[in-house]
Amino acid sequence: MINPFDDTYFMKKALQEAEAAFEKGEIPVGAVVVINDKIIARSHNLTELLNDVTAHAEMQAITAAANFLGGKYLKGCTLYVTLEPCQMCAGALYWSQISKIVYGASDEQRGFKAMGTQLHPKTKVIGGILEQEASELMKRFFIEKRNLN
Amino acid sequence: MINPFDDTYFMKKALQEAEAAFEKGEIPVGAVVVINDKIIARSHNLTELLNDVTAHAEMQAITAAANFLGGKYLKGCTLYVTLEPCQMCAGALYWSQISKIVYGASDEQRGFKAMGTQLHPKTKVIGGILEQEASELMKRFFIEKRNLN
Repeated sequence: MINPFDDTYFMKKALQEAEAAFEKGEIPVGAVVVINDKIIARSHNLTELLNDVTAHAEMQAITAAANFLGGKYLKGCTLYVTLEPCQMCAGALYWSQISKIVYGASDEQRGFKAMGTQLHPKTKVIGGILEQEASELMKRFFIEKRNLN
Repeated sequence: MINPFDDTYFMKKALQEAEAAFEKGEIPVGAVVVINDKIIARSHNLTELLNDVTAHAEMQAITAAANFLGGKYLKGCTLYVTLEPCQMCAGALYWSQISKIVYGASDEQRGFKAMGTQLHPKTKVIGGILEQEASELMKRFFIEKRNLN
């Protein structure tokens, strides 16, 4: 039987969050945290609105998921995020011991891979899920922003 | 004339924060953010109390300082922290473009130096200020914790 709750399904939910960020004038990155096919946290980038460099989608998702679970470790959880995490977010994910990270578009400049940030040895990583959609949204954001200035 | 507001002065304030963390049963790490010899943020590790791996002293200090300044960049600011920042905190400091980081004890295992985390090119780093005091507090914490279990 086909499981409708695959990586693409949950990445679509993360993309909806990225669109919500876009609407607010934020760099459009969205995230959800899933355990047993259930979404327990949704978030999007809020660095401009909150005037806070730590308000990346992933950071909020980690805090919200831990709050939901009542414990700080995210074992058994998967983070879906539309853009490859940065050093900060990968560093937070390292501490969370999250089981799986699925990201959409790569960030060749500031992504954790290029930066060499270490994840927890138990964390599985998959990249490129709905990559096209995630990077199209980013490109549209930066084009619109440039036209406004 | 001697300036009483030197790195040791502000590191003592960070150590007071670390002691506050100790009292709460948290790994004793404290931080303050300073601009023009004025403390604009004080914080200590709250990962256990908040059940949140992102609640390191530095992360809270960055958020609080940005809130005080009304802007997300910490140019002109110095962070004093009793322990060398981890990947997550160094990654957040990278985004903040903070001018200077002063830390006490080194973290050979999980500090940003061993992990290879990149700071902003404009950020100056000084280590080893009141190193002895900071590491004594950490050691005391782990000994007491072991004896309780």
